[in-house]
Amino acid sequence: MIGTLFIFSAPSGAGKTSLVKALLECTHHIGVSVSHTTRAPRPGEENGKDYHFVSTAEFQRMIGEAAFLEHAQVFDNYYGTSQAWVEAELAAGRDVILEIDWQGAQQVRHLMPEAVSVFIAPPSIQTLRERLERRGQDSADVIERRMRDARTEMSHYGEYDYLIINDNFDNSLQELRSVVVARRHRLAAQQQRHADILQALLNG
Amino acid sequence: MIGTLFIFSAPSGAGKTSLVKALLECTHHIGVSVSHTTRAPRPGEENGKDYHFVSTAEFQRMIGEAAFLEHAQVFDNYYGTSQAWVEAELAAGRDVILEIDWQGAQQVRHLMPEAVSVFIAPPSIQTLRERLERRGQDSADVIERRMRDARTEMSHYGEYDYLIINDNFDNSLQELRSVVVARRHRLAAQQQRHADILQALLNG
Repeated sequence: MIGTLFIFSAPSGAGKTSLVKALLECTHHIGVSVSHTTRAPRPGEENGKDYHFVSTAEFQRMIGEAAFLEHAQVFDNYYGTSQAWVEAELAAGRDVILEIDWQGAQQVRHLMPEAVSVFIAPPSIQTLRERLERRGQDSADVIERRMRDARTEMSHYGEYDYLIINDNFDNSLQELRSVVVARRHRLAAQQQRHADILQALLNG
Repeated sequence: MIGTLFIFSAPSGAGKTSLVKALLECTHHIGVSVSHTTRAPRPGEENGKDYHFVSTAEFQRMIGEAAFLEHAQVFDNYYGTSQAWVEAELAAGRDVILEIDWQGAQQVRHLMPEAVSVFIAPPSIQTLRERLERRGQDSADVIERRMRDARTEMSHYGEYDYLIINDNFDNSLQELRSVVVARRHRLAAQQQRHADILQALLNG
Protein backbone atom coordinates (compact mmCIF):
# COMPACT_ATOMS: atom_id res chain seq x y z
CA MET A 1 0.00 0.00 0.00
CA ILE A 2 1.49 3.30 -1.16
CA GLY A 3 0.61 6.62 0.47
CA THR A 4 0.13 9.93 -1.33
CA LEU A 5 2.34 13.00 -1.12
CA PHE A 6 0.23 16.13 -0.63
CA ILE A 7 1.59 19.63 -1.16
CA PHE A 8 -0.32 22.38 0.67
CA SER A 9 0.54 25.99 -0.10
CA ALA A 10 -1.09 29.24 1.00
CA PRO A 11 -0.26 32.86 1.64
CA SER A 12 0.36 33.75 5.27
CA GLY A 13 -3.03 34.51 6.85
CA ALA A 14 -5.11 32.15 4.67
CA GLY A 15 -5.64 29.76 7.59
CA LYS A 16 -3.52 26.82 6.39
CA THR A 17 -1.90 26.03 9.74
CA SER A 18 -5.25 25.72 11.57
CA LEU A 19 -6.73 23.65 8.75
CA VAL A 20 -3.81 21.20 8.72
CA LYS A 21 -3.95 20.86 12.51
CA ALA A 22 -7.68 20.02 12.35
CA LEU A 23 -7.17 17.70 9.38
CA LEU A 24 -4.58 15.69 11.31
CA GLU A 25 -6.95 15.40 14.28
CA CYS A 26 -9.74 13.86 12.21
CA THR A 27 -7.71 11.70 9.80
CA HIS A 28 -5.62 8.55 10.33
CA HIS A 29 -2.49 7.49 8.48
CA ILE A 30 -1.40 10.99 7.53
CA GLY A 31 1.33 13.23 8.89
CA VAL A 32 3.21 16.41 8.17
CA SER A 33 6.68 15.99 6.75
CA VAL A 34 9.50 16.32 9.28
CA SER A 35 12.04 18.69 7.73
CA HIS A 36 15.81 18.62 8.03
CA THR A 37 17.27 21.84 9.41
CA THR A 38 20.63 23.28 10.43
CA ARG A 39 19.18 25.53 13.10
CA ALA A 40 19.69 24.62 16.74
CA PRO A 41 16.86 22.78 18.55
CA ARG A 42 14.72 25.02 20.75
CA PRO A 43 13.81 23.89 24.26
CA GLY A 44 11.36 20.99 24.03
CA GLU A 45 11.99 20.25 20.36
CA GLU A 46 12.68 16.61 19.63
CA ASN A 47 15.03 15.30 16.95
CA GLY A 48 13.12 13.21 14.40
CA LYS A 49 9.77 14.56 15.59
CA ASP A 50 9.86 18.35 15.21
CA TYR A 51 12.84 18.39 12.86
CA HIS A 52 15.75 16.27 11.81
CA PHE A 53 18.54 18.42 13.25
CA VAL A 54 21.75 18.18 11.23
CA SER A 55 25.00 20.14 10.91
CA THR A 56 25.58 22.56 8.05
CA ALA A 57 28.25 20.20 6.67
CA GLU A 58 25.76 17.30 6.69
CA PHE A 59 23.08 19.45 5.07
CA GLN A 60 25.46 20.53 2.31
CA ARG A 61 26.53 16.93 1.76
CA MET A 62 22.83 16.02 1.35
CA ILE A 63 22.36 18.86 -1.17
CA GLY A 64 25.37 17.48 -3.08
CA GLU A 65 23.73 14.05 -3.13
CA ALA A 66 20.43 15.52 -4.39
CA ALA A 67 18.84 14.11 -1.23
CA PHE A 68 16.20 16.86 -0.92
CA LEU A 69 12.82 17.06 -2.60
CA GLU A 70 13.04 20.78 -1.90
CA HIS A 71 15.23 23.00 0.25
CA ALA A 72 15.63 26.66 1.04
CA GLN A 73 17.84 28.97 3.03
CA VAL A 74 16.13 31.29 5.53
CA PHE A 75 18.59 33.80 6.96
CA ASP A 76 21.52 31.66 8.17
CA ASN A 77 19.66 28.37 8.38
CA TYR A 78 18.85 25.68 5.86
CA TYR A 79 15.56 23.79 5.74
CA GLY A 80 14.82 20.85 3.47
CA THR A 81 12.60 17.81 2.84
CA SER A 82 14.46 14.53 2.50
CA GLN A 83 13.23 12.50 -0.45
CA ALA A 84 14.31 9.24 1.23
CA TRP A 85 12.33 10.09 4.38
CA VAL A 86 9.18 10.97 2.37
CA GLU A 87 9.46 7.84 0.23
CA ALA A 88 9.86 5.63 3.32
CA GLU A 89 6.67 7.13 4.80
CA LEU A 90 4.74 6.63 1.55
CA ALA A 91 6.03 3.05 1.24
CA ALA A 92 4.78 2.38 4.78
CA GLY A 93 1.30 3.37 3.56
CA ARG A 94 1.17 6.78 5.21
CA ASP A 95 0.16 9.96 3.42
CA VAL A 96 2.61 12.84 3.83
CA ILE A 97 1.77 16.55 3.86
CA LEU A 98 4.36 19.10 2.79
CA GLU A 99 3.59 22.66 3.88
CA ILE A 100 5.74 24.61 1.46
CA ASP A 101 5.57 27.70 -0.74
CA TRP A 102 5.17 27.87 -4.51
CA GLN A 103 8.91 27.60 -5.08
CA GLY A 104 9.19 24.43 -2.99
CA ALA A 105 6.07 23.08 -4.71
CA GLN A 106 7.71 23.54 -8.12
CA GLN A 107 10.79 21.64 -6.96
CA VAL A 108 8.72 18.77 -5.54
CA ARG A 109 6.48 18.45 -8.62
CA HIS A 110 9.58 18.17 -10.76
CA LEU A 111 10.92 15.24 -8.69
CA MET A 112 7.59 13.61 -7.75
CA PRO A 113 5.00 14.48 -10.39
CA GLU A 114 2.48 12.13 -8.77
CA ALA A 115 2.21 14.50 -5.77
CA VAL A 116 -1.25 16.05 -5.26
CA SER A 117 -1.11 19.80 -4.67
CA VAL A 118 -3.69 22.00 -2.96
CA PHE A 119 -3.68 25.80 -2.81
CA ILE A 120 -5.56 27.43 0.07
CA ALA A 121 -6.62 31.01 -0.66
CA PRO A 122 -8.36 33.65 1.46
CA PRO A 123 -11.78 34.83 0.24
CA SER A 124 -10.47 38.37 -0.31
CA ILE A 125 -7.46 40.64 0.06
CA GLN A 126 -9.35 42.51 2.81
CA THR A 127 -9.80 39.29 4.82
CA LEU A 128 -6.12 38.50 4.46
CA ARG A 129 -5.10 41.95 5.68
CA GLU A 130 -7.53 41.79 8.61
CA ARG A 131 -6.17 38.39 9.66
CA LEU A 132 -2.58 39.64 9.53
CA GLU A 133 -3.48 42.83 11.47
CA ARG A 134 -5.55 40.92 14.04
CA ARG A 135 -2.48 38.99 15.11
CA GLY A 136 -1.36 42.36 16.56
CA GLN A 137 2.25 41.32 16.65
CA ASP A 138 3.63 42.90 13.50
CA SER A 139 4.51 46.46 12.56
CA ALA A 140 2.88 48.17 9.59
CA ASP A 141 6.05 47.59 7.57
CA VAL A 142 6.05 43.87 8.31
CA ILE A 143 2.36 43.63 7.39
CA GLU A 144 3.01 45.38 4.07
CA ARG A 145 5.86 42.94 3.33
CA ARG A 146 3.60 39.98 4.20
CA MET A 147 0.92 41.39 1.88
CA ARG A 148 3.45 41.61 -0.96
CA ASP A 149 4.62 38.06 -0.26
CA ALA A 150 0.99 36.91 -0.17
CA ARG A 151 0.32 38.43 -3.60
CA THR A 152 3.37 36.67 -5.02
CA GLU A 153 2.27 33.36 -3.50
CA MET A 154 -1.30 33.77 -4.79
CA SER A 155 -0.09 34.53 -8.32
CA HIS A 156 0.96 30.85 -8.50
CA TYR A 157 -2.38 29.31 -7.50
CA GLY A 158 -2.93 28.14 -11.07
CA GLU A 159 -0.09 25.60 -10.73
CA TYR A 160 -2.03 23.49 -8.19
CA ASP A 161 -4.37 20.52 -8.68
CA TYR A 162 -6.98 21.76 -6.20
CA LEU A 163 -8.06 25.15 -4.93
CA ILE A 164 -9.82 25.77 -1.63
CA ILE A 165 -11.13 29.24 -0.82
CA ASN A 166 -11.16 29.46 2.96
CA ASP A 167 -14.17 31.63 3.75
CA ASN A 168 -15.57 29.13 6.27
CA PHE A 169 -13.28 26.98 8.41
CA ASP A 170 -15.57 23.93 8.73
CA ASN A 171 -16.38 23.86 5.02
CA SER A 172 -12.72 24.24 4.08
CA LEU A 173 -11.76 21.43 6.45
CA GLN A 174 -14.33 19.12 4.85
CA GLU A 175 -13.08 20.10 1.40
CA LEU A 176 -9.45 19.48 2.29
CA ARG A 177 -10.34 16.16 3.90
CA SER A 178 -12.39 15.19 0.82
CA VAL A 179 -9.32 15.61 -1.37
CA VAL A 180 -7.42 13.20 0.91
CA VAL A 181 -10.26 10.68 1.29
CA ALA A 182 -11.12 10.66 -2.42
CA ARG A 183 -7.49 10.06 -3.32
CA ARG A 184 -7.40 7.01 -1.06
CA HIS A 185 -10.38 5.47 -2.87
CA ARG A 186 -8.98 5.65 -6.35
CA LEU A 187 -8.99 2.25 -7.98
CA ALA A 188 -5.23 1.59 -7.87
CA ALA A 189 -4.94 2.48 -4.17
CA GLN A 190 -7.95 0.35 -3.24
CA GLN A 191 -6.66 -2.61 -5.25
CA GLN A 192 -3.46 -2.51 -3.20
CA ARG A 193 -5.22 -1.96 0.13
CA HIS A 194 -7.96 -4.55 -0.35
CA ALA A 195 -6.33 -7.19 -2.56
CA ASP A 196 -7.63 -10.01 -0.33
CA ILE A 197 -11.23 -8.77 -0.25
CA LEU A 198 -11.26 -8.26 -4.01
CA GLN A 199 -9.81 -11.69 -4.72
CA ALA A 200 -12.43 -13.30 -2.47
CA LEU A 201 -15.23 -11.28 -4.13
CA LEU A 202 -14.26 -12.39 -7.62
CA ASN A 203 -13.44 -16.01 -6.83
CA GLY A 204 -15.63 -16.64 -3.79
CA MET B 1 -19.68 26.55 -14.34
CA ILE B 2 -19.76 22.98 -15.65
CA GLY B 3 -21.03 20.07 -13.54
CA THR B 4 -19.56 16.58 -13.45
CA LEU B 5 -21.16 13.39 -14.73
CA PHE B 6 -20.81 10.61 -12.16
CA ILE B 7 -21.37 6.95 -13.01
CA PHE B 8 -22.26 4.75 -10.03
CA SER B 9 -22.36 0.99 -10.54
CA ALA B 10 -22.78 -1.86 -8.07
CA PRO B 11 -24.10 -5.39 -7.88
CA SER B 12 -27.62 -5.72 -6.50
CA GLY B 13 -27.34 -5.87 -2.70
CA ALA B 14 -24.20 -3.73 -2.37
CA GLY B 15 -26.23 -0.86 -0.90
CA LYS B 16 -25.97 1.62 -3.78
CA THR B 17 -29.59 2.80 -3.67
CA SER B 18 -29.44 3.73 0.03
CA LEU B 19 -26.08 5.44 -0.40
CA VAL B 20 -27.29 7.56 -3.32
CA LYS B 21 -30.43 8.54 -1.43
CA ALA B 22 -28.35 9.68 1.56
CA LEU B 23 -25.82 11.43 -0.70
CA LEU B 24 -28.60 13.48 -2.31
CA GLU B 25 -29.93 14.47 1.11
CA CYS B 26 -26.59 15.92 2.25
CA THR B 27 -25.35 17.46 -1.03
CA HIS B 28 -26.55 20.43 -3.09
CA HIS B 29 -26.44 20.85 -6.86
CA ILE B 30 -26.51 17.15 -7.67
CA GLY B 31 -29.27 14.92 -8.97
CA VAL B 32 -29.90 11.49 -10.41
CA SER B 33 -30.40 11.33 -14.15
CA VAL B 34 -34.03 11.15 -15.29
CA SER B 35 -34.22 8.31 -17.82
CA HIS B 36 -36.36 8.06 -20.92
CA THR B 37 -38.61 5.00 -20.97
CA THR B 38 -41.29 3.46 -23.13
CA ARG B 39 -43.08 1.81 -20.23
CA ALA B 40 -46.37 3.28 -19.05
CA PRO B 41 -46.33 5.64 -16.05
CA ARG B 42 -47.36 4.01 -12.77
CA PRO B 43 -49.80 5.79 -10.46
CA GLY B 44 -48.10 8.84 -8.97
CA GLU B 45 -45.19 8.89 -11.41
CA GLU B 46 -44.57 12.27 -12.97
CA ASN B 47 -43.32 12.89 -16.49
CA GLY B 48 -39.95 14.70 -16.43
CA LYS B 49 -39.43 13.90 -12.75
CA ASP B 50 -39.51 10.10 -12.39
CA TYR B 51 -38.99 9.38 -16.09
CA HIS B 52 -39.34 11.01 -19.44
CA PHE B 53 -42.20 8.87 -20.79
CA VAL B 54 -42.06 8.46 -24.55
CA SER B 55 -43.61 6.18 -27.17
CA THR B 56 -41.68 3.27 -28.65
CA ALA B 57 -41.62 5.09 -32.00
CA GLU B 58 -40.12 8.17 -30.33
CA PHE B 59 -37.56 6.07 -28.46
CA GLN B 60 -36.50 4.31 -31.68
CA ARG B 61 -36.23 7.66 -33.46
CA MET B 62 -33.92 8.83 -30.65
CA ILE B 63 -31.80 5.67 -30.99
CA GLY B 64 -31.53 6.42 -34.71
CA GLU B 65 -30.33 9.93 -33.91
CA ALA B 66 -27.73 8.60 -31.44
CA ALA B 67 -29.50 10.66 -28.78
CA PHE B 68 -28.70 8.28 -25.90
CA LEU B 69 -25.57 8.12 -23.78
CA GLU B 70 -26.64 4.57 -23.01
CA HIS B 71 -29.79 2.55 -23.46
CA ALA B 72 -31.02 -0.95 -22.82
CA GLN B 73 -34.08 -3.11 -23.38
CA VAL B 74 -35.57 -4.80 -20.31
CA PHE B 75 -38.29 -7.27 -21.31
CA ASP B 76 -40.62 -5.25 -23.58
CA ASN B 77 -39.54 -1.80 -22.45
CA TYR B 78 -36.71 0.51 -23.41
CA TYR B 79 -34.76 2.64 -20.96
CA GLY B 80 -32.17 5.22 -21.91
CA THR B 81 -30.21 8.31 -20.83
CA SER B 82 -30.53 11.29 -23.14
CA GLN B 83 -27.17 12.92 -23.86
CA ALA B 84 -28.84 16.29 -24.51
CA TRP B 85 -30.64 16.18 -21.14
CA VAL B 86 -27.42 15.30 -19.27
CA GLU B 87 -25.42 17.97 -21.06
CA ALA B 88 -28.05 20.62 -20.27
CA GLU B 89 -27.86 19.70 -16.56
CA LEU B 90 -24.06 19.85 -16.58
CA ALA B 91 -24.09 23.18 -18.43
CA ALA B 92 -26.43 24.55 -15.74
CA GLY B 93 -23.72 23.71 -13.17
CA ARG B 94 -25.39 20.65 -11.72
CA ASP B 95 -23.66 17.32 -11.16
CA VAL B 96 -25.52 14.33 -12.59
CA ILE B 97 -25.48 10.78 -11.24
CA LEU B 98 -26.11 7.84 -13.57
CA GLU B 99 -27.00 4.62 -11.77
CA ILE B 100 -26.18 2.10 -14.48
CA ASP B 101 -24.52 -1.28 -14.89
CA TRP B 102 -21.08 -2.03 -16.34
CA GLN B 103 -22.46 -2.23 -19.87
CA GLY B 104 -24.09 1.21 -19.64
CA ALA B 105 -20.91 2.53 -18.02
CA GLN B 106 -18.85 1.38 -20.99
CA GLN B 107 -21.24 3.13 -23.40
CA VAL B 108 -21.14 6.38 -21.40
CA ARG B 109 -17.32 6.40 -21.03
CA HIS B 110 -17.03 6.01 -24.77
CA LEU B 111 -19.20 9.11 -25.40
CA MET B 112 -18.18 11.19 -22.36
CA PRO B 113 -14.67 10.14 -21.28
CA GLU B 114 -14.57 12.96 -18.72
CA ALA B 115 -17.24 11.16 -16.63
CA VAL B 116 -16.08 10.06 -13.16
CA SER B 117 -17.01 6.47 -12.37
CA VAL B 118 -17.39 4.82 -8.97
CA PHE B 119 -17.89 1.13 -8.28
CA ILE B 120 -19.57 0.18 -5.00
CA ALA B 121 -18.74 -3.35 -3.85
CA PRO B 122 -19.97 -5.41 -0.88
CA PRO B 123 -17.29 -6.45 1.65
CA SER B 124 -17.82 -10.14 0.86
CA ILE B 125 -19.88 -12.60 -1.17
CA GLN B 126 -21.47 -13.79 2.09
CA THR B 127 -22.66 -10.25 2.92
CA LEU B 128 -24.13 -9.89 -0.54
CA ARG B 129 -26.02 -13.17 -0.25
CA GLU B 130 -27.31 -12.28 3.22
CA ARG B 131 -28.56 -8.91 2.00
CA LEU B 132 -30.38 -10.49 -0.94
CA GLU B 133 -31.91 -13.19 1.29
CA ARG B 134 -32.89 -10.70 4.00
CA ARG B 135 -35.17 -8.91 1.54
CA GLY B 136 -37.31 -12.04 1.84
CA GLN B 137 -39.11 -11.39 -1.40
CA ASP B 138 -37.23 -13.62 -3.81
CA SER B 139 -37.21 -17.36 -4.43
CA ALA B 140 -33.99 -19.38 -4.17
CA ASP B 141 -33.81 -19.46 -7.96
CA VAL B 142 -34.09 -15.70 -8.24
CA ILE B 143 -31.42 -15.25 -5.55
CA GLU B 144 -29.07 -17.57 -7.43
CA ARG B 145 -29.62 -15.58 -10.62
CA ARG B 146 -28.95 -12.34 -8.77
CA MET B 147 -25.75 -13.83 -7.35
CA ARG B 148 -24.58 -14.78 -10.86
CA ASP B 149 -25.43 -11.28 -12.13
CA ALA B 150 -23.58 -9.78 -9.16
CA ARG B 151 -20.45 -11.78 -9.99
CA THR B 152 -20.59 -10.58 -13.59
CA GLU B 153 -21.02 -6.98 -12.46
CA MET B 154 -18.15 -7.25 -9.96
CA SER B 155 -15.81 -8.70 -12.57
CA HIS B 156 -15.84 -5.21 -14.18
CA TYR B 157 -14.86 -3.22 -11.07
CA GLY B 158 -11.39 -2.60 -12.54
CA GLU B 159 -12.88 -0.33 -15.23
CA TYR B 160 -13.89 2.33 -12.69
CA ASP B 161 -11.99 5.40 -11.41
CA TYR B 162 -12.93 4.85 -7.76
CA LEU B 163 -13.79 1.83 -5.66
CA ILE B 164 -15.81 1.93 -2.44
CA ILE B 165 -16.18 -1.21 -0.34
CA ASN B 166 -19.43 -0.79 1.56
CA ASP B 167 -18.79 -2.50 4.88
CA ASN B 168 -20.03 0.50 6.88
CA PHE B 169 -22.80 2.75 5.61
CA ASP B 170 -21.63 6.00 7.23
CA ASN B 171 -18.03 5.54 6.10
CA SER B 172 -19.09 4.66 2.58
CA LEU B 173 -21.35 7.71 2.43
CA GLN B 174 -18.46 9.97 3.49
CA GLU B 175 -16.21 8.32 0.90
CA LEU B 176 -18.76 8.73 -1.87
CA ARG B 177 -19.38 12.33 -0.88
CA SER B 178 -15.61 12.97 -0.78
CA VAL B 179 -15.31 11.90 -4.42
CA VAL B 180 -17.99 14.46 -5.34
CA VAL B 181 -16.64 17.27 -3.13
CA ALA B 182 -13.01 16.77 -4.19
CA ARG B 183 -14.03 16.85 -7.85
CA ARG B 184 -15.72 20.22 -7.33
CA HIS B 185 -12.52 21.71 -5.91
CA ARG B 186 -10.24 20.82 -8.77
CA LEU B 187 -8.52 23.90 -10.11
CA ALA B 188 -10.45 24.19 -13.39
CA ALA B 189 -13.86 23.90 -11.70
CA GLN B 190 -12.93 26.44 -9.02
CA GLN B 191 -11.58 28.89 -11.61
CA GLN B 192 -14.96 28.81 -13.33
CA ARG B 193 -16.99 29.00 -10.13
CA HIS B 194 -14.95 31.74 -8.43
CA ALA B 195 -13.61 33.79 -11.34
CA ASP B 196 -14.60 37.06 -9.61
CA ILE B 197 -12.98 36.20 -6.27
CA LEU B 198 -9.78 35.09 -7.98
CA GLN B 199 -9.58 38.19 -10.14
CA ALA B 200 -10.03 40.40 -7.08
CA LEU B 201 -7.40 38.42 -5.14
CA LEU B 202 -4.79 38.83 -7.85
CA ASN B 203 -5.52 42.44 -8.75
CA GLY B 204 -6.94 43.78 -5.50
